[in-house]
Amino acid sequence: MSASFPSTSAPLTVVGLGPGDTALCTPQALAALEAAELLVGYTRYIELIPQELRDRKRIMATGMRGEMQRCQHAIQAALDGVPTAVVSSGDAGIYGMAGLVLELLDAQDLLGRVPVEIVPGVPALAAAAALLGAPLMHDFAVISLSDLLTPWEVIERRLEHAAVGDFVIVLYNPRSTHRDWQLSRAVEIIAGHTGAGRPAGLVRQAYRPQQAVVVATLGEMPWHQADMLSIVVVGNSQTRMAGGKLLTPRGYLAKYQTGDASQRR
Amino acid sequence: MSASFPSTSAPLTVVGLGPGDTALCTPQALAALEAAELLVGYTRYIELIPQELRDRKRIMATGMRGEMQRCQHAIQAALDGVPTAVVSSGDAGIYGMAGLVLELLDAQDLLGRVPVEIVPGVPALAAAAALLGAPLMHDFAVISLSDLLTPWEVIERRLEHAAVGDFVIVLYNPRSTHRDWQLSRAVEIIAGHTGAGRPAGLVRQAYRPQQAVVVATLGEMPWHQADMLSIVVVGNSQTRMAGGKLLTPRGYLAKYQTGDASQRR
Repeated sequence: MSASFPSTSAPLTVVGLGPGDTALCTPQALAALEAAELLVGYTRYIELIPQELRDRKRIMATGMRGEMQRCQHAIQAALDGVPTAVVSSGDAGIYGMAGLVLELLDAQDLLGRVPVEIVPGVPALAAAAALLGAPLMHDFAVISLSDLLTPWEVIERRLEHAAVGDFVIVLYNPRSTHRDWQLSRAVEIIAGHTGAGRPAGLVRQAYRPQQAVVVATLGEMPWHQADMLSIVVVGNSQTRMAGGKLLTPRGYLAKYQTGDASQRR
Repeated sequence: MSASFPSTSAPLTVVGLGPGDTALCTPQALAALEAAELLVGYTRYIELIPQELRDRKRIMATGMRGEMQRCQHAIQAALDGVPTAVVSSGDAGIYGMAGLVLELLDAQDLLGRVPVEIVPGVPALAAAAALLGAPLMHDFAVISLSDLLTPWEVIERRLEHAAVGDFVIVLYNPRSTHRDWQLSRAVEIIAGHTGAGRPAGLVRQAYRPQQAVVVATLGEMPWHQADMLSIVVVGNSQTRMAGGKLLTPRGYLAKYQTGDASQRR
């Protein structure tokens, strides 16, 4: 896209690093970091980048509420001719920095001028699901419980629809020091439809040294263990616990064993 | 887990290969393939594995409806002491083979005897989102339109709840040669709530040589181009098109520009 514009902007990439373990960071993500001169991100995410690579790059790391400043800095650097990568943990396109970068470019009429690429990563929801077993074998709804940028009423409405629609439910940002009641309220809403016996999973710090995985019913889950680095998964009506894992059957066994399998797909 | 059982079973891994480009396959996935002696999968997915690696392994590849047979073969091989990997494209935990493997193990009371690990990958939904821009910045619902294993009424009900709940909607398995009416019906249901002007995206064969990306309204999308290797994304009420991309604002700009940003998160 850059070639068709008389622009001196360098490329700007938005890179998903995966859940934390370097073994889950894709070669394409690492190549994007290598190709950049400046790496921009939240301090905790910058720390996920291999030290050896970080040492060879310029770094702009800021705290949790510095998103706007960071992304604007990255855009300006690219415009100044510095190849720049903005990093997110997990996938940059799921509640990550891809949106804010595009929003800021669009607001400044720069979408055609700065060549931007999003590099997808292994999202936190896939990491959590892998550690829990196989909860996402059927339709699922993904909901963030952070009401900083979304009115709580909108979140409640989505929780209702997800539960009534019998979706497996994945909760991002379930709890933080300053947001301590939203998770209990969300569980109350969901359990109002499913009952407290519905199987669920809680994964903290997936694929990081402090990793913790709990499978329990909604009523018995130690919810106080949830934090900002946690993902909660609530099963649908078919989900069951099996060998300490969370399993949502896709329906193969039932269908094929009764000889009712269609030849279509 | 294997160490605590008097079992001779070799490890069984279920591996997500990512969307297709080897650059989006994680080192952990490659290491799992290396550690296996037998690789089991749908023919088209086996072909995503680097030829050099395939040449050094035993392969069991079967057609599209051989899932049960493949997974059972993999379980038997592991029990016979052969380290085995079952592969899925994208993420093995999202409509992938992780569930069927666990179902089959559970049904045969083998969950404690066969050491099984799921290796997450970059899912098709993240690949599609990256190519479309940033559609998944807000809560989203993921629905498969395949009614082989799910009654169509259940799928319709979920489409309704997803649309009324103002979720961004991701559709898997939108269309195949033999399932040619479900996508039109799904679009009709969604558009009944959103109107035909709602921005959407269609991604075929993400990160493969035949990749195609279209951003258009529900009313103007060339739906006939969708196939089994396609992902459809329908925006929520805030999603807009920007510079040919699909953008669901997270709300930073509106919130921070009006000075209404909370210090919580």
